Amino acid sequence: MSGLRRLRIVGTGLIGTSLGLALRGSDVDVSLADPSPTACTLARDLGAGRLAEQVEPDVDLVLVACPPDVVAQVVAAELTAHPNAVVSDVASVKSAILKELRASGADLSRYIGSHPMAGRERSGAVAGRADLFSGRPWVLVPHESTSARARELVTELVRAVGAVAATMPAREHDAAVAAVSHVPQVAASLVASQLRDLPTEAIGLSGQGVRDVTRIAASDPTLWTQILVGNAAAVAQILRHLREDLDTVLEALSALGEDPDSDAPGARSVLARLIAEGNAGQARIPGKHGAPPTTYATVTVLVPDEPGQLGRLFTDMGQEGINLEDLHIDHAMGRLMGVVELLVRPADADPLRAGLSARGWTLSE
Amino acid sequence: MSGLRRLRIVGTGLIGTSLGLALRGSDVDVSLADPSPTACTLARDLGAGRLAEQVEPDVDLVLVACPPDVVAQVVAAELTAHPNAVVSDVASVKSAILKELRASGADLSRYIGSHPMAGRERSGAVAGRADLFSGRPWVLVPHESTSARARELVTELVRAVGAVAATMPAREHDAAVAAVSHVPQVAASLVASQLRDLPTEAIGLSGQGVRDVTRIAASDPTLWTQILVGNAAAVAQILRHLREDLDTVLEALSALGEDPDSDAPGARSVLARLIAEGNAGQARIPGKHGAPPTTYATVTVLVPDEPGQLGRLFTDMGQEGINLEDLHIDHAMGRLMGVVELLVRPADADPLRAGLSARGWTLSE
Repeated sequence: MSGLRRLRIVGTGLIGTSLGLALRGSDVDVSLADPSPTACTLARDLGAGRLAEQVEPDVDLVLVACPPDVVAQVVAAELTAHPNAVVSDVASVKSAILKELRASGADLSRYIGSHPMAGRERSGAVAGRADLFSGRPWVLVPHESTSARARELVTELVRAVGAVAATMPAREHDAAVAAVSHVPQVAASLVASQLRDLPTEAIGLSGQGVRDVTRIAASDPTLWTQILVGNAAAVAQILRHLREDLDTVLEALSALGEDPDSDAPGARSVLARLIAEGNAGQARIPGKHGAPPTTYATVTVLVPDEPGQLGRLFTDMGQEGINLEDLHIDHAMGRLMGVVELLVRPADADPLRAGLSARGWTLSE
Repeated sequence: MSGLRRLRIVGTGLIGTSLGLALRGSDVDVSLADPSPTACTLARDLGAGRLAEQVEPDVDLVLVACPPDVVAQVVAAELTAHPNAVVSDVASVKSAILKELRASGADLSRYIGSHPMAGRERSGAVAGRADLFSGRPWVLVPHESTSARARELVTELVRAVGAVAATMPAREHDAAVAAVSHVPQVAASLVASQLRDLPTEAIGLSGQGVRDVTRIAASDPTLWTQILVGNAAAVAQILRHLREDLDTVLEALSALGEDPDSDAPGARSVLARLIAEGNAGQARIPGKHGAPPTTYATVTVLVPDEPGQLGRLFTDMGQEGINLEDLHIDHAMGRLMGVVELLVRPADADPLRAGLSARGWTLSE
């Protein structure tokens, strides 16, 4: 397969930048465009591709990675500007975009929707990473007049970045992401919202459970308003079921709250069923996809909690000629030492330990 | 302090076993009791303590770590069996137990409730670990006739296992755990429950978000039914607020689902407010190990991916006299630059940006 030679990425946020990074070293020529020249230059500097020329006549595929509310309009513009190119987008809701595109009168045989199931809590080019799509599903969402060439080019792209292609009609795709992404987002936000007025001592009792349930409640309001607006009907349908279940649970809890020994019809069994059905649903979720195994070795160093000490540590590492792959600092309050975990290639671990010890550092374990 | 010499643990599941393990090597004599001889022997074999004798006359403190629905009755029995000992329990709901104990007519001056904010998804003695309580809050829940000695002995235990003692009345404790533990559990179960009948291709689109939101939906139905029954009124109160918020969101989504261009009063702003209020609640949750929520400023620097560059960066920081509070390196494969986020005190951020720019570093944003 060599249909994909020139890729134009419109929108150099997290997804667009990661896409360019994932294609570094491949034969694909990647050009970058973004309404913000700063964002575009940053993505270029990170290595995601070259800046697009004013005119790019030979583009094979345009990938639109813009905020959801402007996707349809950008796709239509790109279809016009590149009359021989296939155009796809990466928005997380598909039916509304397709509807808007149909209304635009554009030639949709060259359009195919798509949705890489990849993301991070963080956004923007600097959050981009070459392995973002690795092993993750990437859903192709063709419509009835999508050409074979459009399918082929996007499939080729999906494979080139290490993702796993799946195909779904727009309606089924949107129902799926409503259940596995949008409803969890709403629930996380609703739970987190109840914490706003909690006394400080109460919030201090938070453990890993509430942290996990509410992690995605930190998401961006503008982006998520657009996503929820775009998939409102499908999200509402599932939330209505959820509310019915919640009402049943609330009725049981209210009866038990008034009288803990209440034999209100099956109050206890309602609660047991809630948890058991949650067990059943949770068990269906597949495990992490394509998380590369941690192959780095860890060297743990105790570092005095003073300015300049980390600088001295990294200077010493550099003088040993060893590159850091990743690092964690555990810098607990009230402790005299920070604990720094240096992650390095396994072959570098022993030389690093020896070198740092010789330079007077205290290693742990 | 040396008031705590003999500790009796009743119930050798996750908490009881971890408690014994945490006291290994201390001066405290730990004896273990459990209705199941097998469970008790297992905890002994793991190193949690010795098996209790039929009669143990000199126990200072009894810690009841049984399933919630039998705690009150076991506490009352232990108060009778050990007329000189202080008795505490570790159940996650306190008011209902206190009420039941008051009805029992037991001498409650020797009783103090408690609740270690520690747990794992796994249960039983084999899941026990010596560091389970390390750095975690452990709430003492005295009532009006709790003796000073009871407070002292449990405080001594809490310190001995490395936990951080906090004190709250039963009612406030129960309201707090309803918000930070029980409501998140109900929400996670409700979301997971909606996944039961999803087509296989749809569930295959699951990502880290839904995995996090539903992780605790894997919890044990029997244990959680008991917890929810025990705290029904407090949980119901928060869930009623959550349902009101959900109804508002549903109304907005229903209007937008029928007509995406709907100007139904503030439909979009309802959704934006949902996410923004979730942001606000989530931001209040303290970090791991009771660290205060991150109030640091972030300075993002692009660092060439070569040995010694990080050393140069930290040396430069040290020369600016600025101490690093925390740091993240995003050192993704295939990128020309590492992205380093420096977290510093807010007042240090602007001087650091100026200093690093002057020294030739590329900052982002």
